[in-house]
Amino acid sequence: MIRGGIIGVTGYTGLELLRLLKNHPRVKLTTFVSRKSSGKNLNEVLPFSFEDSKLSELDFQKIAENCDVLFTALPAGVSYEVAKELKNTTRIIDLSADFRFDDPEVYLKWYSKRLIGYEKFERVYGLSEIYREEIVNAKIVANPGCYPTSVLLALAPLLKNNLLLDEIIYVDSKSGVSGAGKKESIEYSFSEISGGLKPYSVIKHRHVPEMEQEISNLSKKKFRVIFTPHLVPMIRGILSTIYVKTSLTMKEVNELYNDFYHKEKFVHILKPGIYPSTKWVYGSNHVFISIVKDEETGILILISVIDNLTKGAAGQAVQNMNIMFSIPEETGLYFNPIYP
Amino acid sequence: MIRGGIIGVTGYTGLELLRLLKNHPRVKLTTFVSRKSSGKNLNEVLPFSFEDSKLSELDFQKIAENCDVLFTALPAGVSYEVAKELKNTTRIIDLSADFRFDDPEVYLKWYSKRLIGYEKFERVYGLSEIYREEIVNAKIVANPGCYPTSVLLALAPLLKNNLLLDEIIYVDSKSGVSGAGKKESIEYSFSEISGGLKPYSVIKHRHVPEMEQEISNLSKKKFRVIFTPHLVPMIRGILSTIYVKTSLTMKEVNELYNDFYHKEKFVHILKPGIYPSTKWVYGSNHVFISIVKDEETGILILISVIDNLTKGAAGQAVQNMNIMFSIPEETGLYFNPIYP
Amino acid sequence: MIRGGIIGVTGYTGLELLRLLKNHPRVKLTTFVSRKSSGKNLNEVLPFSFEDSKLSELDFQKIAENCDVLFTALPAGVSYEVAKELKNTTRIIDLSADFRFDDPEVYLKWYSKRLIGYEKFERVYGLSEIYREEIVNAKIVANPGCYPTSVLLALAPLLKNNLLLDEIIYVDSKSGVSGAGKKESIEYSFSEISGGLKPYSVIKHRHVPEMEQEISNLSKKKFRVIFTPHLVPMIRGILSTIYVKTSLTMKEVNELYNDFYHKEKFVHILKPGIYPSTKWVYGSNHVFISIVKDEETGILILISVIDNLTKGAAGQAVQNMNIMFSIPEETGLYFNPIYP
Amino acid sequence: MIRGGIIGVTGYTGLELLRLLKNHPRVKLTTFVSRKSSGKNLNEVLPFSFEDSKLSELDFQKIAENCDVLFTALPAGVSYEVAKELKNTTRIIDLSADFRFDDPEVYLKWYSKRLIGYEKFERVYGLSEIYREEIVNAKIVANPGCYPTSVLLALAPLLKNNLLLDEIIYVDSKSGVSGAGKKESIEYSFSEISGGLKPYSVIKHRHVPEMEQEISNLSKKKFRVIFTPHLVPMIRGILSTIYVKTSLTMKEVNELYNDFYHKEKFVHILKPGIYPSTKWVYGSNHVFISIVKDEETGILILISVIDNLTKGAAGQAVQNMNIMFSIPEETGLYFNPIYP
Repeated sequence: MIRGGIIGVTGYTGLELLRLLKNHPRVKLTTFVSRKSSGKNLNEVLPFSFEDSKLSELDFQKIAENCDVLFTALPAGVSYEVAKELKNTTRIIDLSADFRFDDPEVYLKWYSKRLIGYEKFERVYGLSEIYREEIVNAKIVANPGCYPTSVLLALAPLLKNNLLLDEIIYVDSKSGVSGAGKKESIEYSFSEISGGLKPYSVIKHRHVPEMEQEISNLSKKKFRVIFTPHLVPMIRGILSTIYVKTSLTMKEVNELYNDFYHKEKFVHILKPGIYPSTKWVYGSNHVFISIVKDEETGILILISVIDNLTKGAAGQAVQNMNIMFSIPEETGLYFNPIYP
Repeated sequence: MIRGGIIGVTGYTGLELLRLLKNHPRVKLTTFVSRKSSGKNLNEVLPFSFEDSKLSELDFQKIAENCDVLFTALPAGVSYEVAKELKNTTRIIDLSADFRFDDPEVYLKWYSKRLIGYEKFERVYGLSEIYREEIVNAKIVANPGCYPTSVLLALAPLLKNNLLLDEIIYVDSKSGVSGAGKKESIEYSFSEISGGLKPYSVIKHRHVPEMEQEISNLSKKKFRVIFTPHLVPMIRGILSTIYVKTSLTMKEVNELYNDFYHKEKFVHILKPGIYPSTKWVYGSNHVFISIVKDEETGILILISVIDNLTKGAAGQAVQNMNIMFSIPEETGLYFNPIYP
Repeated sequence: MIRGGIIGVTGYTGLELLRLLKNHPRVKLTTFVSRKSSGKNLNEVLPFSFEDSKLSELDFQKIAENCDVLFTALPAGVSYEVAKELKNTTRIIDLSADFRFDDPEVYLKWYSKRLIGYEKFERVYGLSEIYREEIVNAKIVANPGCYPTSVLLALAPLLKNNLLLDEIIYVDSKSGVSGAGKKESIEYSFSEISGGLKPYSVIKHRHVPEMEQEISNLSKKKFRVIFTPHLVPMIRGILSTIYVKTSLTMKEVNELYNDFYHKEKFVHILKPGIYPSTKWVYGSNHVFISIVKDEETGILILISVIDNLTKGAAGQAVQNMNIMFSIPEETGLYFNPIYP
Repeated sequence: MIRGGIIGVTGYTGLELLRLLKNHPRVKLTTFVSRKSSGKNLNEVLPFSFEDSKLSELDFQKIAENCDVLFTALPAGVSYEVAKELKNTTRIIDLSADFRFDDPEVYLKWYSKRLIGYEKFERVYGLSEIYREEIVNAKIVANPGCYPTSVLLALAPLLKNNLLLDEIIYVDSKSGVSGAGKKESIEYSFSEISGGLKPYSVIKHRHVPEMEQEISNLSKKKFRVIFTPHLVPMIRGILSTIYVKTSLTMKEVNELYNDFYHKEKFVHILKPGIYPSTKWVYGSNHVFISIVKDEETGILILISVIDNLTKGAAGQAVQNMNIMFSIPEETGLYFNPIYP
C-alpha cells in the first residue's frame, strides 16, 4: 500500500482528495494535517468526511516516516516551505502554484512571493496525459491549475504539431465557484452569486502566465493568451471556449485529436455537433472536447469541460500519484460522473 | 412629498427600500446613511443602485431637519440608540427587532441587549393588515420579522376568532438566503448553500418569541409555537407550512379567510388545491395563502408565501409608511412579481 | 460475479444504478434495456455513461439466461408485467411501487392499476436496515419510495419500541427535483423551478399509504401521517422534518437511536444541536438523523437527510442486492458524498 | 392613454410585457390574447398575473378598434400573419424575428419560412438607442433579438466610427434559460440545467445573420461574427464577451463610449477594472458595458450585460412604444434591478 498524507484536508481540494483516496485500492491514508483544526477529529469537524482520524499539525519528521506521498493543498508560498523542510524524503504532489513555473521570477511577479533556492528542486509540471514519462520519477509534481488543464488538453494536439496560424489564442473560460476555495467573503456568498454571471480578472488572471509557459513548452513557440474567466452560478465545472486559426480541414483536425487521445482513458473527443455540459464530468476525472470549424474564416473553436476539483485538481493529483507509483493510471479514478 | 431617509442603505434590506422608494410617487429620498461607506457616492459603491447621492454618517440633527420618516435597517440594538437620539423628531420605521417586543425582558433574553427606557417609547407592531389603525399615528413602527409576517397573516383569521382547538402550532418554514443579510462567512457561501437544504436554529429561533407574543395578542390566549426554519438554495422567498387543528369545515375556513382578507390588496387566498411557489411573489409585496384540511383528523394545513425582503421587510415598511402618511396603502407598491 | 441487468437504464434511477454497479467489484452488467432507445449504443445516447454497450429491447428469455438479478426502473404497472413474464427465473429488485403494498387494493386506489395474481408473488419491502433477514431470500424486493425511506428510518426506533404518544405523525418533507424523473413538462423546467419553492400533493401524495402501511408494520398500531412534500430548487436530496410526541427524555431518545443504529454503516445519528444539509449525503448512500426535543410540550422533531436517487432509490437497491447475494452490505457503496 | 394589446401574454415575454405595461402611467391594456387559454381569466391561468381580465382569441377587427399598439410575442411566422391581417390599422411592436431582416431570403434560410409580400411592409429595426428617429413614425417595429441587443450596443460606437481593424468579431455569449421560452422538454428541465453550463448552436445560431446585418448597417462594411452562445444555470440575463481589434488607446475608447452614450438613461459605461454581473440588471431595462484593452496585442474586450427578457425583449419593446408615441423614453421603465 502507498502511504499517503494530505495537508489542508478540510479545504475543498483536500476534501476531494480525501473522497478519492479513501476508496483508492492501493492507498492507505496515514496523515491528515489541518492548521486550523489540529487536535480535533475529522469526523467532528466535518461529519460527512466519514473519517474517524485525528487532524494533526505539521510534523515534518512524522510525515517523512509515515508518508510515501504527500498531497499539499495550501495557499501560495506555504507548499514551498513544506517542500523545503521535507528535503526530498517524501514525494510531493503540490496543488498550489508554487512549483508550476519554470522561472521563479514569473512566479514572483504574479504571486508576489520570492522562492529562494527554487532551482534546487526537481519538479515536473503534472499534466498527466502530456508529461507522464517525466512524472514517473518526479520528486515534486506541480499539479496544474484548473483553467490551464482545461485549455492545454484542448490545445495540445495542435500545439505539439505546430498547426496554429496565429500567435494569439482567445480563451473564454467559465468556472464554477468552488475553484475559489472556502471563502469568507460577501463576494462569494450565495446571494451575490446565485442567479447571475460575471467576468473577473479579465486578461490578467494568474493562470495566464502558466498557460503561456506551457503552450510555449508544447509548441516551442511564443503565444499570447487573451483570457477572460467568468464566474458561473454552479459549484463545480470549467468550460473553456477557445478560438484559434488553423489551415487544417475539420476532418483533419478530428483525426488529429482522435489519434492523439486514442489511448487515453479520461479524454474524450466528441463527434461533430455534440457539445458537452460540465454536468457530464461532475465529480469525475473525465474530460470532453468538442471541435467546430468555421470554414469561411478558418477559425477553429475548441470546447473542453472538466470538473475543476477533480481533473482540475484532486483527480489529476491522484492520476499523477498512480503514474509516480507505476500503477494503472485510472486506479481508483475511473468512475462515472454524478448525473443529473 | 414625504422626505425620507434610509440608514443602512447598502445592506439587502436597505437596497430593497431604495428600489421601492426611488419609484414611489410621493417620496423624495433626502438622506442615505452608511456607516461603512460614508463619504462615498452610492453609485460608486453599488453601480446598480442608480443613485447619484452621497452616503453620509449618522447626523441626528440633519435627519431631524430633512426627514419626515426614517427607515432604520440596522443590527440589533443600534436602531434603539438612533431612536433615542432622534427624540421623536422624525417618525421611524425600524426593520430590526428592537421595537417588536411588548416586554423588554423577552428582548433581553433573546437578543442579549438591555433596552433602557423602553417603556417611554410609543411603538406599534407594524403588521399592516392587522394594525393599520394603530400605525396611522405611530411615532415608531416596529416592522415585523419575515417569518412572523408569513405566519401571522396565515393564522390571523383563526386566531382573532378563537377557532383553534389545540394550544400547539407547528410551523415549518423555508427561507431564501437573503434573509441572513450580507454575510461574510463560509456558511453562507455559494458552494455551501447551492444544491442543498438544511434546518437551523430548530425550536429556538429568535422569531419564536415574536410569533408567540403576537399570536397571544391576536387570540388573547397562550400558544406554543414549534418552529423549524430551513435554509433553501434560493435568494428570496419564505414559505411557511403551518399545522393546526380546528373544528371548522373546509368550506367554513375558506369563507372565513376570504371574508377576512376580502378588501386586502396584497393578501390572496388561493382556491382549494392550488399551491403557490415563492416565485409567485418574487420582488413583490403580495402574499398567497393556501388552505387544506384533513377531514379525518381535523388538521388544517396553512401555506403562505411572501418575499422575505419585500412583504417580509422593505415592502411592508413602505406599506406602513403609506399608512402613517394617510396615502393609499398600495402606492408605489402594487406591481407584479418578476416571473420567471 | 453477479450478473446484473437494468431495465430503464437511461432514466435518472437507471443512470444512478449504472454509476453504482459499474464500479461494484462483484457485479458484471450483462443487460441494458431501454424501450425508447433500443438498438443504439449507450455511449451514443448518453456519452457520459462511459458504457460501450448496446441497448436492447425486453427479451425475457435472454434476461433469464444472463441475469442473476434484474433492476427494474419502470413506470407504475410495467414492472409487474415484467415480473410476471420472468416467472421467478431471475431475482428482481423493483424500483417502482408495484410490489410495495401488502394489499393490492391500496395500490389500485392510489395508482389506478389492478395487479392480477398479486398474492402469488413472494415479495419483501426492501428497507435494508429493517428487513435484511427477509431480503436475503427474497425473489422480489420492492425497493422503498424515497420519502418513505427518509421517514421510516427516522421513526423506526420509536415505532418498534412503541414509544409514540399520539396517533398523528406530521411529516414535512423537502425534495430535490430529480425525484420526478426525466420530465418533459413546463412545470419541471429550470425557469419554473429555479429560485423558488413550492408544496405539492399536500396530504394526498402516493407515498402516504406506503408510509402508513410500513409504520403500522413496524409498530403494530395504526397511525395517520399528515404529509406535505415540497419541491426545492436543487437536483438531489430529501430532508424530512418529522413532528411526534413521546414521553422519553432527550437523553433516552438519543440512547435509543444510537443503540438501534449502532452497527449500521450508512445511518448516522448526529449529536444534539448538529443539523445536516442534504449536501452531506450528495451522491452517497448515507443517512443522517438529527433529534431535538421541546421539553415543554414533549414534542420531538426528527430530521433526516438522504440522497433521493441513492439511498432513496438506486443505492438502497444495490444495498439490497448485496444482502440478497450475501456479500458485505456496503460493498461498492461505501464512499463519501461529493462535497461541495 | 395609449390603448395596448398583447398577443401571447402567457409566455415569458408576454408576462414581462404585462408586468411593465400594467404599471405604465400612460398605457391602458385593453386586449389580452392567448391562443391556448382563450376564454379563461388571466388570474385563473396565472394567479400571479394579478390581472382580472379575460383572455380572448385573435380578433383582428377588435384589435384594430381597441388597440393603438399591439405587442406580438409569437412563434416565427405567426406575427407576420397577424401583421398582414391588421393592414396597418394598429401599430405593431413584434418580438419575433419576422420583421428583423432586410432581406426575406435570409429569413427564409434561417427560419425556413417564406414571407410573401414582405417588401410592402414599412418596418424599422427597433434598437432604441440607435434608431429612435426611424422608430418614431414606424408602423411596425421589429424588436431586436436578445443576443443582438447585447452585442450591437457594445459595438455601436466603434462600428459607427469605423474603428475596427479586423473583419472578424468574436462573440462569446452566456445566457439565462428563460430566453428559450416556456419549454416542454427534458433538455430545459431543472435537473438537466442546474449545476452545469453548456454551449449550443455554435457558429450557427439564428442570431448570427441578424447581428451581421446590423453590424453591416452600422459600419457600412462586412464583418464575420464568430458566435458561441452558452446556456448558464440562471433564469435571466445575457453577458456577451466580445473580442475585437482597434488602434485606439484605452483612453480614447473610453472617451468614445462615454460620449456616445452620454445622454442615454439605460446604457452605462463602467470605469476601467469594474465588471458587471448580470444580476446588476435583473428585471430592469439597464445595460452595463465594460471595456478592457490588451495593449500588447491591440485586442479590445467588450463586456455587456442585459436582462434578456427586459432590455433583450419586453423592456426594449416598451422603450420603443414610448418613442413611437413621443413620450419620455424611460416612462414606466426607469427602475432598479431586483438585488440580490
